[in-house]
Amino acid sequence: MSGKSGKRVAVLLGSASDKPVMEAAFEILTEFGVGFAGRVLSAHRTPEEVVRFVREAESGGVEVFICGAGMAAHLAGAVAAHTTKPVLAVPLESGGLGGLDALLASVQMPGGIPVAVFAVGRAGAHNAALFAVQCLALADEELASRLAGHREAQREKVRRDDGELQRELGDGK
Amino acid sequence: MSGKSGKRVAVLLGSASDKPVMEAAFEILTEFGVGFAGRVLSAHRTPEEVVRFVREAESGGVEVFICGAGMAAHLAGAVAAHTTKPVLAVPLESGGLGGLDALLASVQMPGGIPVAVFAVGRAGAHNAALFAVQCLALADEELASRLAGHREAQREKVRRDDGELQRELGDGK
Amino acid sequence: MSGKSGKRVAVLLGSASDKPVMEAAFEILTEFGVGFAGRVLSAHRTPEEVVRFVREAESGGVEVFICGAGMAAHLAGAVAAHTTKPVLAVPLESGGLGGLDALLASVQMPGGIPVAVFAVGRAGAHNAALFAVQCLALADEELASRLAGHREAQREKVRRDDGELQRELGDGK
Amino acid sequence: MSGKSGKRVAVLLGSASDKPVMEAAFEILTEFGVGFAGRVLSAHRTPEEVVRFVREAESGGVEVFICGAGMAAHLAGAVAAHTTKPVLAVPLESGGLGGLDALLASVQMPGGIPVAVFAVGRAGAHNAALFAVQCLALADEELASRLAGHREAQREKVRRDDGELQRELGDGK
Amino acid sequence: MSGKSGKRVAVLLGSASDKPVMEAAFEILTEFGVGFAGRVLSAHRTPEEVVRFVREAESGGVEVFICGAGMAAHLAGAVAAHTTKPVLAVPLESGGLGGLDALLASVQMPGGIPVAVFAVGRAGAHNAALFAVQCLALADEELASRLAGHREAQREKVRRDDGELQRELGDGK
Amino acid sequence: MSGKSGKRVAVLLGSASDKPVMEAAFEILTEFGVGFAGRVLSAHRTPEEVVRFVREAESGGVEVFICGAGMAAHLAGAVAAHTTKPVLAVPLESGGLGGLDALLASVQMPGGIPVAVFAVGRAGAHNAALFAVQCLALADEELASRLAGHREAQREKVRRDDGELQRELGDGK
Amino acid sequence: MSGKSGKRVAVLLGSASDKPVMEAAFEILTEFGVGFAGRVLSAHRTPEEVVRFVREAESGGVEVFICGAGMAAHLAGAVAAHTTKPVLAVPLESGGLGGLDALLASVQMPGGIPVAVFAVGRAGAHNAALFAVQCLALADEELASRLAGHREAQREKVRRDDGELQRELGDGK
Amino acid sequence: MSGKSGKRVAVLLGSASDKPVMEAAFEILTEFGVGFAGRVLSAHRTPEEVVRFVREAESGGVEVFICGAGMAAHLAGAVAAHTTKPVLAVPLESGGLGGLDALLASVQMPGGIPVAVFAVGRAGAHNAALFAVQCLALADEELASRLAGHREAQREKVRRDDGELQRELGDGK
Repeated sequence: MSGKSGKRVAVLLGSASDKPVMEAAFEILTEFGVGFAGRVLSAHRTPEEVVRFVREAESGGVEVFICGAGMAAHLAGAVAAHTTKPVLAVPLESGGLGGLDALLASVQMPGGIPVAVFAVGRAGAHNAALFAVQCLALADEELASRLAGHREAQREKVRRDDGELQRELGDGK
Repeated sequence: MSGKSGKRVAVLLGSASDKPVMEAAFEILTEFGVGFAGRVLSAHRTPEEVVRFVREAESGGVEVFICGAGMAAHLAGAVAAHTTKPVLAVPLESGGLGGLDALLASVQMPGGIPVAVFAVGRAGAHNAALFAVQCLALADEELASRLAGHREAQREKVRRDDGELQRELGDGK
Repeated sequence: MSGKSGKRVAVLLGSASDKPVMEAAFEILTEFGVGFAGRVLSAHRTPEEVVRFVREAESGGVEVFICGAGMAAHLAGAVAAHTTKPVLAVPLESGGLGGLDALLASVQMPGGIPVAVFAVGRAGAHNAALFAVQCLALADEELASRLAGHREAQREKVRRDDGELQRELGDGK
Repeated sequence: MSGKSGKRVAVLLGSASDKPVMEAAFEILTEFGVGFAGRVLSAHRTPEEVVRFVREAESGGVEVFICGAGMAAHLAGAVAAHTTKPVLAVPLESGGLGGLDALLASVQMPGGIPVAVFAVGRAGAHNAALFAVQCLALADEELASRLAGHREAQREKVRRDDGELQRELGDGK
Repeated sequence: MSGKSGKRVAVLLGSASDKPVMEAAFEILTEFGVGFAGRVLSAHRTPEEVVRFVREAESGGVEVFICGAGMAAHLAGAVAAHTTKPVLAVPLESGGLGGLDALLASVQMPGGIPVAVFAVGRAGAHNAALFAVQCLALADEELASRLAGHREAQREKVRRDDGELQRELGDGK
Repeated sequence: MSGKSGKRVAVLLGSASDKPVMEAAFEILTEFGVGFAGRVLSAHRTPEEVVRFVREAESGGVEVFICGAGMAAHLAGAVAAHTTKPVLAVPLESGGLGGLDALLASVQMPGGIPVAVFAVGRAGAHNAALFAVQCLALADEELASRLAGHREAQREKVRRDDGELQRELGDGK
Repeated sequence: MSGKSGKRVAVLLGSASDKPVMEAAFEILTEFGVGFAGRVLSAHRTPEEVVRFVREAESGGVEVFICGAGMAAHLAGAVAAHTTKPVLAVPLESGGLGGLDALLASVQMPGGIPVAVFAVGRAGAHNAALFAVQCLALADEELASRLAGHREAQREKVRRDDGELQRELGDGK
Repeated sequence: MSGKSGKRVAVLLGSASDKPVMEAAFEILTEFGVGFAGRVLSAHRTPEEVVRFVREAESGGVEVFICGAGMAAHLAGAVAAHTTKPVLAVPLESGGLGGLDALLASVQMPGGIPVAVFAVGRAGAHNAALFAVQCLALADEELASRLAGHREAQREKVRRDDGELQRELGDGK
């Protein structure tokens, strides 16, 4: 567990149907022992709850917001409009446009209200959570050292895959 | 002037720089004698003013909202989240993506919170205003009859252009 | 049921194969008690029937037209060319272009002939019907009050989903 | 001049502003001595004139229709809905989408109502006119022989350009 | 059968795997009694056979070429480079780009070498064949009259679908 | 000036030609009194310098990296591969693809190596720098309070623009 | 087997999951008897291994590098930054963007660091390997003659497919 | 000058208007002392000249072909169909599609006929020529050593730009 306790990250889902993808963020935060709140809140259907949650979350110690949403993905922008804490967006794919709609609706924010955007879908959810840990690690050496370990584990995974391919190709003697 | 007075349409601009394009909407509403308010309000920079304006506008008699915005154009969605009056969006072009960002950010609204979207840029601003008049004309015969006249004037314009082309080509004898 | 009876909305399908998606519009109109006609009419295969239908529909009391079509989706434009009532378009996905073809063919209408466009596919069909109700509600207080109730029900649905996620994550004590 | 006289090709412009591009079609038809009518007719603003023109044109001997239009380019589809003569479309660029809107709105016609589509802009207008001549040349040997000559002239032009480049590079001794 | 006998249309497939889609063209030509040759010929793998085939086909009476190809679809352009007969292209979908690659590779021909392009996939194959019949019908009254009958059959199909929908909705009494 | 001194942010430009756009980042960092280093470093032309710089920067106290690059924009990814500090990317427009190339090359990072992406061009450079300040402000109350002031100034700017528009339209009495 | 022995081509996979597609490259190199190394190496997760491998590979006699990667595909660029041997990229499809992300991230390299790009997916892997053989064949006549044989075999395959289609259509008598 | 004399590279332009962009290739080849032929040859207008040129070029010692073309860019594919030497393509921008048409028409080659594709426009022309030199350098040590020098010069250029930026920012003391 990190030096600070409590819920330091809020993970917002625009719809309950976004859970299978956004779970990748829950997993990373759990792995790093970073407390988080997971909420279903809609920029369009429950706009007042979004505002209220952002205010309460901030005063309750949330330091980073992660917002996953598809289509005309406005959730991250709506959160960013009410906080100066870092807001991260995960554009989600739905329908035939491959997530390009959610990507552009998230990333093309006007000057003054930053939203940090990650890849469409599961890789983006995974990376947004890792990035949230990176932000917290700026003032949390234990988290910083875990990040180094996590990076090393990734390297190991690639090395194992590499070894396996070489063995298959008869190169690994 | 229409049977009803007062400001029946609100035209919201996400930024003062959107005025040269959105003036096309002002012109149509003026031409039809429909009272309107023109406001600069930002979904991201002044979110509370947006909510307050929508509430006051509704109680003040505004029946239709037109929102022009570029990039990750969230203004129409933010307005639609706080009213069940018709909300119309005009996606605006800025930068190199040709307005595709604003178009997708406006049109791909999730089920439950409708936003009616028109063409990127000036044609869209013109048509959104005309469409607002069409909505009001459902219960305003004078407006309905003006719409018929406006349509006829368009036809006349095409006919004149057609006559001119035929004369140029030596067909119009 | 709404104060006005009869068929107030016409839902046009460019092809019988569009029914599974466009049923989302039938459902909303039925839920709100708004009378509607559902028709299969093709801008390209039965252009004269389209024109005849629009004329008869208007004189028969239809106030809003909803048109669902895929590919080079011209149905809404063809209807809009013959009426000054509000015309709503639902672009439908077919083939590999994800509905981008139908979206652009619907939304990029030239100045003078407005068509209000909604999201590609089922969300768009749902929202176009809701928007039609919003147009009618401008002069129908009963419908306006039902829209408020419908919006509240959406909020409730999000709140329930939110509660469920919090319970799953062990936050909902 | 071709064996048949009269206006064998109709060139329709969706708007007078399309003339500078569509003149490329006038030039080819004039060069081949094929009689043509040039008209400004709008699928949306003058739909009845379009239908009337197509009927009169057919009975007056028009064998091929060329339609130039931008944005949600429906003109060719509207013409094709009323004739079984070959209908050719030239998608025109306007605004920031580079003509992709007009291209998709023209080319993605549903099965049963063919429209033959050419490149966006001037190259497309030029080629649509050449293609119209190719259609007529199926039953007109004089036109067929002119097409062969025109093709040879293109080859000559490339050869001259090639010679000039080689001279510039010092290769052409 | 048409007034003229022999193979009047050549349908070229860039690959044997294109057959399931391009059969839509075979069906239309068979329905109209227009003789055709179906060939697998590759612009890239058998370029000389393409050239030889085009020459022999032309002298053998082929009047229209239809080319179906996917990816960087060059077949129609390669054929058009060797004939002044009408060349029609059907862009085929393969892989993740939804056929946009084949569409742009077919339609964006430079001025001077026209290729007439139809929709991506089966609708395009169907329409290209119908369009070929339209070209031949310019000088073949029997084909022209069959085209009129075919168009009427389409209308009937839409009318039946329309009747069925109305009955389902309880409107068709 | 912020509580911490020294260079806390590194702004990397893939090419000297990116300076006019990336200056928007310099301006924000200067405005907030956050020390920064500005460097021209190329992921492709000086890959070893990039690695060396990242290592030295980290040990020298840099906490956030901002990378501006166009085309196949790999700079942010290359930096992220060598640090677990937050890495922000600004995709830049060049040539005809409107920055879509740089956007996708930046945002679609694989799981494990996060890069936070902002809008294409100047708005993105501005927001990336603001976001860097937001990250630093997590542990720097003075910066946090300046961010609140900056947000308020934005609101004031919108309010002034709004007032001006209302005066122009005769609404601001 | 080619005149030169040893591993002349290195095939790098950005992830073990790319193997089913990149095997198309292994197959071609095996068919031509060109020795190759197959490795899993990630530009982002194992950047130092990439650099080390490129250096060792070059001194060990590798003459051409083939890199397959998806999403923000930086592997080929990272390799090209450390060698002046030919580097070939195969963009891979993953998620909803159809490989457009990997294509643009690979092909839009800035001036000075060339990467040769092939089609998205399996056709690209096949062609990149063939192209590597073409590069080696510049100084290896045996390989050159095998390439001619391979090309002839392709022609034969098309001819067989063509014959089969003609037989099916009853044309092949 | 390289060890081998004569014209080792052929640079083909689809149109004389491509010269201002393709000159970037001439410059690189001249800088490296690699003999080249520059030709204007059109896949569509002079297809036979293309075939003849490819055959003569090969027997005359050309080892690499570079083809620059815009729109439905088929030139590289047409050349690749007649040689097993490496063929490089430079997609050129023309009109509103930003070169996406030429890029897809070049890169999406079917399996069996490889074409190596570079960036749209001038950067691509520059890199294609550099890549041609890389291919030749596989068997030409003098060229290989020049490539190393050229790479070093690029590094120097970046270092100078970097120094200049640091001086401007007051960092370069």
